[in-house]
Amino acid sequence: MSTIKNIGVLTSGGDAPGMNAAIRAVVRASLYHNLKVTGILRGYEGLIQGDFFPMDGKSVANIIQRGGTILKTYRCDAFRTKEGRAQAYKNLKESEIDALVVIGGDGTFRGADIFSQEFDFPIVGLPGTIDNDLMGTDFAIGYDTAINNVVNAVDKIRDTAESHDRLFIVEVMGRDSGLIALRSGIGVGAEAILIPEAKVGLPQLFHRIETGRKDKASKIIIVAEGDEGGGAYVVGEALKEKFPKYDIRISVLGHIQRGGKPTCMDRVLASRLGVAAVEGLLEGKTDVMVGQINKEIVFTPFSQTTKHIDAEKITPAWLRLVEILSM
Amino acid sequence: MSTIKNIGVLTSGGDAPGMNAAIRAVVRASLYHNLKVTGILRGYEGLIQGDFFPMDGKSVANIIQRGGTILKTYRCDAFRTKEGRAQAYKNLKESEIDALVVIGGDGTFRGADIFSQEFDFPIVGLPGTIDNDLMGTDFAIGYDTAINNVVNAVDKIRDTAESHDRLFIVEVMGRDSGLIALRSGIGVGAEAILIPEAKVGLPQLFHRIETGRKDKASKIIIVAEGDEGGGAYVVGEALKEKFPKYDIRISVLGHIQRGGKPTCMDRVLASRLGVAAVEGLLEGKTDVMVGQINKEIVFTPFSQTTKHIDAEKITPAWLRLVEILSM
Amino acid sequence: MSTIKNIGVLTSGGDAPGMNAAIRAVVRASLYHNLKVTGILRGYEGLIQGDFFPMDGKSVANIIQRGGTILKTYRCDAFRTKEGRAQAYKNLKESEIDALVVIGGDGTFRGADIFSQEFDFPIVGLPGTIDNDLMGTDFAIGYDTAINNVVNAVDKIRDTAESHDRLFIVEVMGRDSGLIALRSGIGVGAEAILIPEAKVGLPQLFHRIETGRKDKASKIIIVAEGDEGGGAYVVGEALKEKFPKYDIRISVLGHIQRGGKPTCMDRVLASRLGVAAVEGLLEGKTDVMVGQINKEIVFTPFSQTTKHIDAEKITPAWLRLVEILSM
Amino acid sequence: MSTIKNIGVLTSGGDAPGMNAAIRAVVRASLYHNLKVTGILRGYEGLIQGDFFPMDGKSVANIIQRGGTILKTYRCDAFRTKEGRAQAYKNLKESEIDALVVIGGDGTFRGADIFSQEFDFPIVGLPGTIDNDLMGTDFAIGYDTAINNVVNAVDKIRDTAESHDRLFIVEVMGRDSGLIALRSGIGVGAEAILIPEAKVGLPQLFHRIETGRKDKASKIIIVAEGDEGGGAYVVGEALKEKFPKYDIRISVLGHIQRGGKPTCMDRVLASRLGVAAVEGLLEGKTDVMVGQINKEIVFTPFSQTTKHIDAEKITPAWLRLVEILSM
Repeated sequence: MSTIKNIGVLTSGGDAPGMNAAIRAVVRASLYHNLKVTGILRGYEGLIQGDFFPMDGKSVANIIQRGGTILKTYRCDAFRTKEGRAQAYKNLKESEIDALVVIGGDGTFRGADIFSQEFDFPIVGLPGTIDNDLMGTDFAIGYDTAINNVVNAVDKIRDTAESHDRLFIVEVMGRDSGLIALRSGIGVGAEAILIPEAKVGLPQLFHRIETGRKDKASKIIIVAEGDEGGGAYVVGEALKEKFPKYDIRISVLGHIQRGGKPTCMDRVLASRLGVAAVEGLLEGKTDVMVGQINKEIVFTPFSQTTKHIDAEKITPAWLRLVEILSM
Repeated sequence: MSTIKNIGVLTSGGDAPGMNAAIRAVVRASLYHNLKVTGILRGYEGLIQGDFFPMDGKSVANIIQRGGTILKTYRCDAFRTKEGRAQAYKNLKESEIDALVVIGGDGTFRGADIFSQEFDFPIVGLPGTIDNDLMGTDFAIGYDTAINNVVNAVDKIRDTAESHDRLFIVEVMGRDSGLIALRSGIGVGAEAILIPEAKVGLPQLFHRIETGRKDKASKIIIVAEGDEGGGAYVVGEALKEKFPKYDIRISVLGHIQRGGKPTCMDRVLASRLGVAAVEGLLEGKTDVMVGQINKEIVFTPFSQTTKHIDAEKITPAWLRLVEILSM
Repeated sequence: MSTIKNIGVLTSGGDAPGMNAAIRAVVRASLYHNLKVTGILRGYEGLIQGDFFPMDGKSVANIIQRGGTILKTYRCDAFRTKEGRAQAYKNLKESEIDALVVIGGDGTFRGADIFSQEFDFPIVGLPGTIDNDLMGTDFAIGYDTAINNVVNAVDKIRDTAESHDRLFIVEVMGRDSGLIALRSGIGVGAEAILIPEAKVGLPQLFHRIETGRKDKASKIIIVAEGDEGGGAYVVGEALKEKFPKYDIRISVLGHIQRGGKPTCMDRVLASRLGVAAVEGLLEGKTDVMVGQINKEIVFTPFSQTTKHIDAEKITPAWLRLVEILSM
Repeated sequence: MSTIKNIGVLTSGGDAPGMNAAIRAVVRASLYHNLKVTGILRGYEGLIQGDFFPMDGKSVANIIQRGGTILKTYRCDAFRTKEGRAQAYKNLKESEIDALVVIGGDGTFRGADIFSQEFDFPIVGLPGTIDNDLMGTDFAIGYDTAINNVVNAVDKIRDTAESHDRLFIVEVMGRDSGLIALRSGIGVGAEAILIPEAKVGLPQLFHRIETGRKDKASKIIIVAEGDEGGGAYVVGEALKEKFPKYDIRISVLGHIQRGGKPTCMDRVLASRLGVAAVEGLLEGKTDVMVGQINKEIVFTPFSQTTKHIDAEKITPAWLRLVEILSM
């Protein structure tokens, strides 16, 4: 391994609050260790296009509190081709960038895994995804902000639900994972949470509503995007048919979950992992994601970060907790 | 007119942030004038069911900051019938309630108008509707909170739009009026605002996008629910066809616009109008809505509050302002 | 008057949320009218130092939602001297700037008034001050955000006050004016509001507390910085002595009132006034502030904007409202 | 140990956001296990006064999102006396309450420890303190909300600091611990964080400022209440003397840190610990606090919760992180 003198940093995949805090930490840590640091725009697309620019302390001034990513992001197909990656490598060599920090989710890491091995190029990844669906870290950057965005939105919906004695079905993000639904559902005091992992079907939902407390003015049912019962509209239609006298409304929260100022936890997590990524590279780490497990910094090979995580993060104990609290 | 000793208060129609502040003001003003005050649950439905309860200072403690309405609300069909209203009148007489304050929107006032005349019963209305689509007041209670809810949500979407160089179409509330879209659209710095009143069709929208600044990373188009171009999805499909290389996303904000803590302006407006409603009743006012025009308290007959308001509130000057700002 | 081709824009005095929205509107309106627009950094200080830079649409992209001012601000003593102003004029001439938009408060306008007359230089001012203490506009840019900042902060304090049955004295900004205290005090449901204009002394405050409802768990007293009873600490000491068994706490809100994202109202106001300022200059207006009174755009000579405004904005009707609501 | 049939629940010490979520979970879990649950008002004071009331599902409806505590809290001296505790025990026996859940901080647990042993009375504690200064849990209920409150407040101050090129000294809570300062300081991107544990004196602070990047427009220094350098005012005076040309301001955040809606994390933590407390009692646990360490539920004897925690939670790695990031 050659000595690292210039670290490139990019964000890829869906944007997540806290990505800017991570970029800032990568830049500050690089400067602390007297390294150059190069910003790469629009993720792997910018890598292939050679959209690079030198970063210094001022480049990341006053961004820790901003949502989105100043480096922009992009879903890049060309990086899945051998030619695309070869061009990317060529650009890196020409710009004398000798290591990468990539901030993103599982798609990002799959690309990084291939590239890192193909060209023996040092890469450390940072988990940046509101879905939190990665092995190797308790929390991904952006998740805490996303669940707080959901909680704040549903608190508002609760006001209306209480005023009208309504049942609301609220669909939250999480295409393959119920993690956003689970935590935010507990946070808003949901009467039911439908997530793919729990296999709660409509019959159980009907049963829960029928046997639930009758003195409740409002009901909120949180549905994960990817729930097998179908999205909020499918659940809504079924409930309207089963309980025709209920006043039922549907709300799909959509993109508001993703943006906004990051929470303190996301800023701290991003800051810590950003520094650890740079120092990991300096210690020779590569082809790994840096995460935080039980308060400790942990490096996990990219190939192990993208396995199915439900069994680990959505335990029976959590599902039981939901049942007790939603009485 | 008999002397008023007991004022009933109810909220009706869609809930609006600030309704609780209005209830509080009605109660406090009644107590200040040594009147009894009676809470009526679920709007006209509670009037017909006789769902009444005495209120005192403690009934409205610590509610000024809460969204929704502690008196609950309901869309009541029975009050549109002569029998329903007769039952309501009977209940009021039996409970010795001799005047009403009704907080709601145009449907609420149409009912109040009929009832007030049918039984010669003193009623003063307070404008409580996020749509702000009432004559007789510059602002209805809830409107300022709603547009701030939109602005806060779209600020988050802007983060994502900027990160991905995307065009977002965001649908906001306002079935018959573009007032929420107009103000919140200016507030978020929208690249275009589609409202029924402006008759901006798709060709003009296409033109604006084609001739707009090319160096803009993101575009936000605000569409009022009731825009004649169709909702956000119709606009979205047309744009995707016309601009196939744009990355276009759609977000329907829905119920999050309605709830949440009222803004200071909505609390102050509700407080002021609530006191004015009680004092208006004591001065013999009836069959009127109390509003605020140019900082002054104004009473407007119910029958004149529900006319089409667009010409007055959405002037050419406002539409020109949008055009200048969205360059 | 020569034709205007290049407008300079600056912010001066204390920063106020919405200043960026105003800058954006000035820039956009200038471009709309095919004018050049020049940013001047740090207010009058930058005018004297010649800290100018050309602005275009991109200069103001994505700033409408940001607190503070991208042009920065400064309290400049040199502009009070003839030499300072002469240097400023020289810089403007050299840079071919032929009109100014100045965004700030009374100090800003006093300087602009002198400069405008001294050099026959076209200047239009925009009211940007959280204090709202200017004649010629119902609201200054920043005031609505500031009172919402106060309301959000005191809502939090109310949680603690209710939990502990405490009396809180909260000091808010407003050195010469009780306008922030008045509106925010109504907004938080304060039990008393002490403002210079109302001349409520400690004996009346004692009386109000002694005769107030006994079933209130918490009490919040809002004190304007400039209240003649002294700041929050003086009031606090007096109350502790008079009511030794009360659990009394003091909170001085300070600088958090000033910053943060502007509200929708402040963004819309700033946008509208910014456009009106540019178009006012083009119509030959000078030595005036542009404001909004009763929904209309109004131009007021600088010399008339800085008179004492209390009598107009804090009327007996408002003070009576406070008394009724705080029962 | 006799079978538990009726659980009393109280909150004590300073209020913390999430206490209501904890109360709700205790009530829901008790009902789930077919136990009675009794609310005790004002902490140990209510225990001595016999201020008890039966709780059911409705008692805790719609409180999960509220700051403060519906059971109120109090700093009670009488419970430190043998007589006080004897009276409390008598009241519990008379009301047939046979176990307690106490929610609070170290003072609360010291009282619970004595009482539990003195009368062989089953008590499980929940950590509810914004200071997070307890052994036996990674996070106490309220801490996450408090640091987010700080971050949101300081983000606003940053707007002003950037606009004026100012240095702000911001004092945050934490009488004996720098934990709030540490995390929120990282979260706001502070240029320096002064905490008791780090022993950074004024000379080091001067050095850091002198050697720091010169291109920074603003500086934020976070000072913990209990920092040995003295509070914000002492630090401010020293800095003003050392750097007379800096524009230095001071802000003491005070009580706004404590209140407000709890974050999602605090709600989830409180919900989980509340259920665990009830189930711990049913399993015979007593004289312990229930916490969460590395994602697992852990019971720690009261006597071990109140040791000095700095060495564990504020490690050299965290202090190094602060140094790297504040460059």
